[in-house]
Amino acid sequence: MKAIRYYGPKDLRLEDIPEPVVGPGQVKVKIAWCGICGTDLHMYQHSISDGPPTATEPHPTSGETLPVGVGHEFSGTIVESGPDVDTSKHAVGQNVAVEPIIGCNKPGCACAESHTRNLCSQFAAIGIHGGGGGLSEYVVVPQELAHILPANVSLEIGALVEPLAVAWRAIKLSHVKAGDKVLILGAGPIGIFVLKVAQIFGATWVGISGRGSKRCALAHKYGASAVYDASTGIDVVAETLKATNGRGADVVVDCAGSQSTLDTALKATRPGGTVMNVAGWTARPTIDMNLMLMKELVLANSIGYAGDHPELIQALADGKFDLDDLEALITRRVGLEEYLEKGLGALLHEKDQHDWAAGGNLKGYKYRPSLRSGHVSEEDL
Amino acid sequence: MKAIRYYGPKDLRLEDIPEPVVGPGQVKVKIAWCGICGTDLHMYQHSISDGPPTATEPHPTSGETLPVGVGHEFSGTIVESGPDVDTSKHAVGQNVAVEPIIGCNKPGCACAESHTRNLCSQFAAIGIHGGGGGLSEYVVVPQELAHILPANVSLEIGALVEPLAVAWRAIKLSHVKAGDKVLILGAGPIGIFVLKVAQIFGATWVGISGRGSKRCALAHKYGASAVYDASTGIDVVAETLKATNGRGADVVVDCAGSQSTLDTALKATRPGGTVMNVAGWTARPTIDMNLMLMKELVLANSIGYAGDHPELIQALADGKFDLDDLEALITRRVGLEEYLEKGLGALLHEKDQHDWAAGGNLKGYKYRPSLRSGHVSEEDL
Ligand SMILES: [Zn+2]
Ligand SMILES: [Zn+2]
Repeated sequence: MKAIRYYGPKDLRLEDIPEPVVGPGQVKVKIAWCGICGTDLHMYQHSISDGPPTATEPHPTSGETLPVGVGHEFSGTIVESGPDVDTSKHAVGQNVAVEPIIGCNKPGCACAESHTRNLCSQFAAIGIHGGGGGLSEYVVVPQELAHILPANVSLEIGALVEPLAVAWRAIKLSHVKAGDKVLILGAGPIGIFVLKVAQIFGATWVGISGRGSKRCALAHKYGASAVYDASTGIDVVAETLKATNGRGADVVVDCAGSQSTLDTALKATRPGGTVMNVAGWTARPTIDMNLMLMKELVLANSIGYAGDHPELIQALADGKFDLDDLEALITRRVGLEEYLEKGLGALLHEKDQHDWAAGGNLKGYKYRPSLRSGHVSEEDL
Repeated sequence: MKAIRYYGPKDLRLEDIPEPVVGPGQVKVKIAWCGICGTDLHMYQHSISDGPPTATEPHPTSGETLPVGVGHEFSGTIVESGPDVDTSKHAVGQNVAVEPIIGCNKPGCACAESHTRNLCSQFAAIGIHGGGGGLSEYVVVPQELAHILPANVSLEIGALVEPLAVAWRAIKLSHVKAGDKVLILGAGPIGIFVLKVAQIFGATWVGISGRGSKRCALAHKYGASAVYDASTGIDVVAETLKATNGRGADVVVDCAGSQSTLDTALKATRPGGTVMNVAGWTARPTIDMNLMLMKELVLANSIGYAGDHPELIQALADGKFDLDDLEALITRRVGLEEYLEKGLGALLHEKDQHDWAAGGNLKGYKYRPSLRSGHVSEEDL
């Protein structure tokens, strides 16, 4: 089959490799669509991580050395079931979105529980650390990581489930509830998804601050109650206080990860409220602990997802998301063979365009820069 | 009546002043015992706060200028009820511990709800900002702030209810539950109280780190599972990991508030765990946000108390605290007339002795340095 594989920084290759073989408890998925995100860019430009997999050192959980498959935001159709698969839950022909995080399964690790699988100290992400990738024809995954898509959700939107799950977990762990006022710092893709999810959780006011008119226009389009263009020097704290009767937002979600967004977050959150960080940081900020104390703030963190897909997919099935809105986030569809030139390459060169693209099926992928995994600076917003 | 009043830094006076008069909804309390804490020391040495009350500017909630009464950790007996008091709840002759925080009661303020009264931006603490003080013969307080002491709780222990409530709220907001492993950074009075409360909430392992052999001996005496003398350079993170099967503590409570305790807290907390700050900070620390993110840590804060007294007093009534243990924390009892010399003065001069004292009734007080309200540096531990 055709597959894009990562040999190291600046070295991605489209190759012909054997199809993966289903093992016990696994299903084989024919991939339909796969997104590209900031993690892919970072991996291409710099490295996978500080540790394995390297060319000689295998990843402790996947057991693989380089090259590894690429692409972790993907959907597809089950084409084969391995031994011990409960086929009442996963039948050939069903469409799925894949949750691409595999834990070490060592006793005592956080990954022993599905809702903290993301906190495994040795987790392997499919498409990053081994286990194949979404930019190929087929992948095999453990049955429990293949989440059945409901009839109303297309395979294209299925490829958005992974980044949507990032936003879902962040809002869930923020305990956003009906009537809450939420401020989002960062109007990149994750910021937009967080906006959508906050509305589904019942937030009645969602402000969003981003850099640049294009990003801000997107936030407007996707229903933000207020949009602040941080590049104009607007006082986001003052505006948020104004919009919340002087109290501050119940929850502020930091999708940017900088000294200035952290400072803004602490000041713009109401007493007793929550600051939720979903960003990776390029430097350690200072933090006004006395302000945190006097307001009894909670600074929470959310990374990736773990066990969040079923709830999110149920919300998609229940029509809680505007599917046209989501589909509109996919702005480009290109073929797998064009990945380096028109996909990743274009994304790298046109990063300031901040748009999304998608490609379909074997020769397709979409691309969509997203922000997470500790790799993205404020400038990437 | 006799009362100690604060005229400004280094200016406390024992005076004869008129007895306070009960207003509507208030009860008059004859004070039995009053503790002294770090806030009192700070107020004496430096100031009340950056703002009012001053000699000319009244506190917005208490309406008082200097001088103001001193002492906010006190117990006593109801001797009179004002108009509109529900005497089925508060009868003359009942012993009470006073919750000394009064909110501004302005619409929209956090103090509109009793459990966030402490987050009022203009709260007045009795004994700090006006409203009388515990170092006097009588005080009048709103009925709802006078918490009836159960028969098994002495008035002496009643004066410990206030700092115990600080610890109670911190552990409650940390969501400590049965079987949890808790690490406490700082073995001062609040650290010891937090230890006691963590055990009541079901923690099965409570480690505590403090500076100096005296403090550490106290922590041992009060039942810590492990005591680390931070002044010896012991690796508290490594020891905590060892004691928790390599996972880290479920909750780490920072009672010290320094760069080193924050660093230790983030490293010693298990993935998905909580760091609870109860300390005031003398400087802004830096914070390893990527570590927070990768472990999905929650950094929570707890200041004072608000609506916590009833639960705490119920726990005292139910025998959940070892009352002899609590009583043993009171190491000195001196008279009101001796306050400046043998109370506050001794505490200031013998601070490194880290002991407590108490005095009774009109001519009595105890003293007990405690750590909170943003005034205490690591050295004060
Ligand atoms: Zn694991
Ligand atoms: Zn208030």
